[in-house]
Amino acid sequence: MEFSSKLLERAVNEMSQLPGIGKRTALRLVLHLLKQPKEQTNGLADALQTMRSDIKFCRSCNNISDVELCEICSSSNRDETLVCVVEDIRDVMAIENTSSFKGLYHVLGGKISPMDGIGPHDLNIEPLIKKVKEGTIKELIFALSSTMEGDTTNFYIYKQIQEYNINMSTIARGISVGDELEYADEITLARSILNRVPFESSLKT
Amino acid sequence: MEFSSKLLERAVNEMSQLPGIGKRTALRLVLHLLKQPKEQTNGLADALQTMRSDIKFCRSCNNISDVELCEICSSSNRDETLVCVVEDIRDVMAIENTSSFKGLYHVLGGKISPMDGIGPHDLNIEPLIKKVKEGTIKELIFALSSTMEGDTTNFYIYKQIQEYNINMSTIARGISVGDELEYADEITLARSILNRVPFESSLKT
Ligand SMILES: [Zn+2]
Ligand SMILES: [Zn+2]
Repeated sequence: MEFSSKLLERAVNEMSQLPGIGKRTALRLVLHLLKQPKEQTNGLADALQTMRSDIKFCRSCNNISDVELCEICSSSNRDETLVCVVEDIRDVMAIENTSSFKGLYHVLGGKISPMDGIGPHDLNIEPLIKKVKEGTIKELIFALSSTMEGDTTNFYIYKQIQEYNINMSTIARGISVGDELEYADEITLARSILNRVPFESSLKT
Repeated sequence: MEFSSKLLERAVNEMSQLPGIGKRTALRLVLHLLKQPKEQTNGLADALQTMRSDIKFCRSCNNISDVELCEICSSSNRDETLVCVVEDIRDVMAIENTSSFKGLYHVLGGKISPMDGIGPHDLNIEPLIKKVKEGTIKELIFALSSTMEGDTTNFYIYKQIQEYNINMSTIARGISVGDELEYADEITLARSILNRVPFESSLKT
């Protein structure tokens, strides 16, 4: 792609570094910004920069937060003995959206995936093990997507905490195998949490 | 969509103002930036802001440019008697990419579209009429997409300059009717410029 302007070229190149945004899409987006008032571009740029520099991750659950301990972890209405293990903040948002879960979360930040070079130590697993050892948690719900990587991650955590006396369950597979959690409809997702199954029984299927 | 962070929410809202970017896609993009080094976000933000504030439009052809008169208009190797009328800078890029056209361009900035409230005076048409009246141009090639709006725009310009003694042609319809110019392959596009047809004969079909 040949550009008539270095400024345009640089903007398109930066934009096309985002995942799923090719050069053509990037050009379309950038040309759109050129047609809008300057304030829109400045607002976007400022929002991205401020977020990137100031955002925090909850020191307990690793959810994105503006304060050190997120709203969910610091709420007195949540059951701290029940913890739902998720991959991503989008899963927290999807489950919160069902208003059906009153426990806390633990955000791993990904799944174990040897193919992508992601091992247990690249994820937020150690603090979860530590929390389990401390003894407050009575039940863990695994809510990772039911892919091979999700199953591997569940099993890795299961092996680490097997000896402790806590219940482990996986969300019910109302969600089709291989589907991403965040795209499930609210009712299916709410029901799959309600009908969660003991982790050991999910190993036998 | 409920967010655990105002900073995140603002970034997603700004991002989702871009055309074709829904809230979910915006969230995915923003979370990606959070996983990358800060420099990537800063680079993107700076590239967009600098572009938006400093970019120029060529005073002759209205193409995007870093200088007052764009590279194409100021080149001594281009035939200034031949002008290709296009909708958008992306069309300039697509045609330049074929290396088959040695004339100049005139970028309208859109098409006449009463449905979208876009009339002739919202487009860069007047300066084109003025250029024609000044007498340097011997041939105009209409390269707008062959939609009803494109045809309307061609015809509007045609009526304005009919009395002047210049050739008017449209690019050959190797490109299927209704297709956007920028998605045509290079060979088809190059050929459609080579086989351009006199504008009057395109009216009869
Ligand atoms: Zn938290
Ligand atoms: Zn120019």
